[in-house]
This record gives sequence, structure tokens and C-alpha cells, in this order.
Amino acid sequence: MTKIKAAIVGYGNIGRFVLESLQEAPDFEIAGVVRRNADNKPSELADYAVVTDINQLGKIDVAILCTPTREVEKYAEVLLANGISTVDSYDIHSGIVGLRSRLDAIAQANGTVAIISAGWDPGSDSVVRTLLQAAAPKGLTYTNFGPGMSMGHTVCVKSKEGVKNALSMTIPLGTGIHRRMVYVELEDGYSLDQVARAVKEDPYFANDETHVMQVQSVDEVKDMGHGVNMVRKGVSGKTQNQRFEFNMSINNPALTAQMLVSAARASMRQRPGAYTMIEVPVIDLLPGDRDQLIAHLV
Amino acid sequence: MTKIKAAIVGYGNIGRFVLESLQEAPDFEIAGVVRRNADNKPSELADYAVVTDINQLGKIDVAILCTPTREVEKYAEVLLANGISTVDSYDIHSGIVGLRSRLDAIAQANGTVAIISAGWDPGSDSVVRTLLQAAAPKGLTYTNFGPGMSMGHTVCVKSKEGVKNALSMTIPLGTGIHRRMVYVELEDGYSLDQVARAVKEDPYFANDETHVMQVQSVDEVKDMGHGVNMVRKGVSGKTQNQRFEFNMSINNPALTAQMLVSAARASMRQRPGAYTMIEVPVIDLLPGDRDQLIAHLV
Repeated sequence: MTKIKAAIVGYGNIGRFVLESLQEAPDFEIAGVVRRNADNKPSELADYAVVTDINQLGKIDVAILCTPTREVEKYAEVLLANGISTVDSYDIHSGIVGLRSRLDAIAQANGTVAIISAGWDPGSDSVVRTLLQAAAPKGLTYTNFGPGMSMGHTVCVKSKEGVKNALSMTIPLGTGIHRRMVYVELEDGYSLDQVARAVKEDPYFANDETHVMQVQSVDEVKDMGHGVNMVRKGVSGKTQNQRFEFNMSINNPALTAQMLVSAARASMRQRPGAYTMIEVPVIDLLPGDRDQLIAHLV
Repeated sequence: MTKIKAAIVGYGNIGRFVLESLQEAPDFEIAGVVRRNADNKPSELADYAVVTDINQLGKIDVAILCTPTREVEKYAEVLLANGISTVDSYDIHSGIVGLRSRLDAIAQANGTVAIISAGWDPGSDSVVRTLLQAAAPKGLTYTNFGPGMSMGHTVCVKSKEGVKNALSMTIPLGTGIHRRMVYVELEDGYSLDQVARAVKEDPYFANDETHVMQVQSVDEVKDMGHGVNMVRKGVSGKTQNQRFEFNMSINNPALTAQMLVSAARASMRQRPGAYTMIEVPVIDLLPGDRDQLIAHLV
């Protein structure tokens, strides 16, 4: 079997977990890692090429983008145009349709595939949300997140004057309503009241119940666990009160990375173009013989 | 918008709920019902054609097979060869790969699409099982059914000598282990002991904890609710203890029927061939504008 040649583009938190998922996957070959500073080579990369330009890695089938979300498009455009398929975990919900449309044109013109927003939300959660709407077309779905760290909210708090380090935890209160628990280390000379007011006034927090607390060390209260509780109550045909629930309790970057690697596999099996996860058959996410998968999973 | 012209083939329990799902679907036209005795026309079919031969209904896009599972293949073969796509809820797990392969050849040769085993298990559950394996490739998934009526086990009990009417309930004990609670009405002159022994010796029951009880009226203890609790604990990359759970509490024939109608819609969007639900993108199950679906669900 010819293995899929994958490159990891960006090597932060997600990139490290993508490396582990690729190492465990039976059908991938790790071509190398692309990062801004190729001299920065931690021990787990000792056996791999680390480069600043993906062209130094030889022929690549798929690039797994582990860059910040706002840099995804810039990288994907260039790679897709150069004959390399891409997967990413782009997570700005309001930007997904636009990103898909722009990358679709590039991918179709160059015979490549982009699978976008292929983490867990957006990503695997999106598949469950779509399936539940097909199972009970009328009704409401609530996606409740946490308890877990919100990257976006944490970055927002860190940007406030007087904040040395911060952690914003998302706490689910049900029906899609969330409490924000914010833990901050303060710079000398700043008061908690001052910082708390700035946080609560920010649009990121203004609509949610928000509590800001001072801690000696943010690092000591941080963990990467996260959770989802998705609930749908709806109508199948004319039958009311059909109830569905999806729960998970997971290591956040590990699941994001695993979904990216599964999507990278699926990118080898789609016709040229850009796709979200709900447009990809779930069987394409898995390695192995299709008849055996059908016998085992259907 | 041209509506999808659908025929209901077979009009038992599932067929009745398929009629309701089609009536609620914005994109379907109900061409009619095919049944052995076209004179048997309950009031809810007053406005529809009821025929013994599907050719009497004019041009049909898709036939929704609501026949007993063992008759699915016979009907699908003829319809697919005659230019009509099919969906079914064929539920003999060990027969799915074979059925798919045989119908695939016929569908491809005739430019039609078959989506098989498109109920809830096999069906929507299969999509969740596959997705969870992609999210945590190593680990165990347990699918726990019930409490709810098992059709297959009930039919088995009814076939025993001395049984006038029966109900076999599936009770989940966790880790895929189930208790069978069997309720029987006896014919005169038969003892519960006798019947209980015959039931417990049957291969359908021999491996499960089985209790057989006599009731005055099976009809009075029967309801069509059912449930699923699917649990996966597994490894994403090298990260252990990733936990996932999917629960539902549903009206059994109503959900089967809704999934069949959603699959019938998806059959219009696949290339010729036969598919199980895990081979169909979940977005294809839904009506409406794709960009709007992506914006709303991803």
C-alpha cells in the first residue's frame, strides 16, 4: 500500500498532537514539519525533516494546517494552487461559507481537495448536528460546551491592560447558554476591579454571565480537557418528542488533531474542490477495506 | 423547484409513518402506495393512488421500500433495473455487504441509486459509530439498545407452539449485553413452563438472560418507544480516555420512516450505485440551500 505523504504546517499545540496521530495512523508517511524557524527542533522531531518551505519536503499529498485560524486561508491558497491538498480546523463559524467558496475555486482549478473546519466544533459536532436534523427535521438543537478552556476568550482577556496571563473557562448552563469563568494573573499596579470591568464590557463577554478571579498562577489551573453536550428534541414526520443527546469529554487538541488526520485521509478520496465535514462521507475518514468497515460499522 | 416523486412500497407500520414524513417534507410529492391488495385503503390514503403495480403510478424517482426485510432485495432488483432508485431499512447486519454488492451492480448498470439499511440501526447509529471511530481510532464502542420492543425476537416467540401473542422487550444492561423480557398470551392447554423452555432454548435467546412472563393481553403492554445508548472510550492519537456517548429515546417506526425519507432525498444526489448510510454525506439528507445548511450546521 502506498502511504499518504503528509506535511504538518505550523507546530504549536495542535501540530504536536497531529504528529502523534500521524505516528499512530497505519496509512500515513510523515514527510516533515513546516515552521517559521526550522532550527527550533524539539526532541520528538529528531527523526523528521523540519523546514521553512514545504517545497523542501519533496512530493506531498496533503498538508495539515496547524496555523492560527486567521492564517489558514493564506496557506491553503498557495498549497492548493501548487497541487497539495489541505485540511484545517478553521473555527470562525461566520467565515466558513466564504472560505469554502474561495478555496473551492482554487482547488477545482488545480485538481486538489480542501477539507475545511475539520476539528470537533466545527467538525465532528457538525456531522452529529446535521444527522440529528435529518432524524427529526423540526425542533431545536442546543450545543453546550465545556467545562473547558475557550481559546478565543482567553486571547481576548490576555489583550487587556494589566493582565499578565489569563484563562477563560466555558461552563455550560444548558440550552446553549454559557457562563465564563475568567482567571487572571495581574501586572503590578493593576486592580482586579479595573481588569474585571474591562473584560465584562468586551463584546466577547458582554452577553454572558462572567466572573473574573485573580490567581497566583494561571498555569496551575489550566488543563486541556473539554466537553460537549448536544441535545435535540424534535419531530420525525408527525411524531413529537424524539430525543437525542451527544456527549463527549475529551482532550481538546488531541481530538482536533485526530479529526484533522482523519480528514486528511478523506481528502485523498474526494473529487477536486473544497468541503466541510458534513459534505464528506464518514466512511472516508477511516483506513482499511471498505467492505470490512461496512460489515463492522453499519 | 421540481419535487421528488416518491412511491411507498408496502404499507404496514413503517409505511404509515413514511407517509407522514413525506407529507411533512417540503421537497417530496407522494406518487402513491404500492400494496398487495389495492382495495385495502384506510382513510389516510383517501387522497392517494393505491395500486398493486408501481408502473400504474407514472414516472417515479424513488421507491421507499417498507416491505419485510427479507423481501427488500427482490423488490429493489426489479425497481433499480427499471430506472427507479430505492431506499430500504434492511436490518440483517450480516447480510448488508452482500446486498450492497449485488444491488450496486444493478444500480450502476441502470443509472439508479440504492441506499440500503437506512433506518436507525443500521442507519443513523452507523453514522455515529463510524464518526466516533474516526475521532478515537483505538478503543471499544458499545451499542446498548432499549428499553424497547425487538421485532425479530417477538416474531420468534410468536412462532412457538402454544403462543397466541407475544412481545419481546430488549433491556440494556451495558457493554452491549441485553436482557430479554418476554410477555406471552398462551393458547388454551399450554403451560408457561413449556413455552418458556422453548423460548430460552431458541438460538435467538440462548445467549441472553431471558425472562418469560404470562400476560392477559400483550396489546396492553406494547408501546413503540425505543432507545439507544452508544458509548465509546478510546484513543485519539496517543491520548487515552477520550469519551463519547450518544443517546436517543424515540418512537421506533417514526424514526425509521424519517431516516428512509431523508435517505430517499439523498438518493437523488449520489452517482449510480448502492450505498450504506456511512457512504453518504450527511448534508445530502437535508432539503434546502447548501450554503445556508453549511452556515447553520457546520
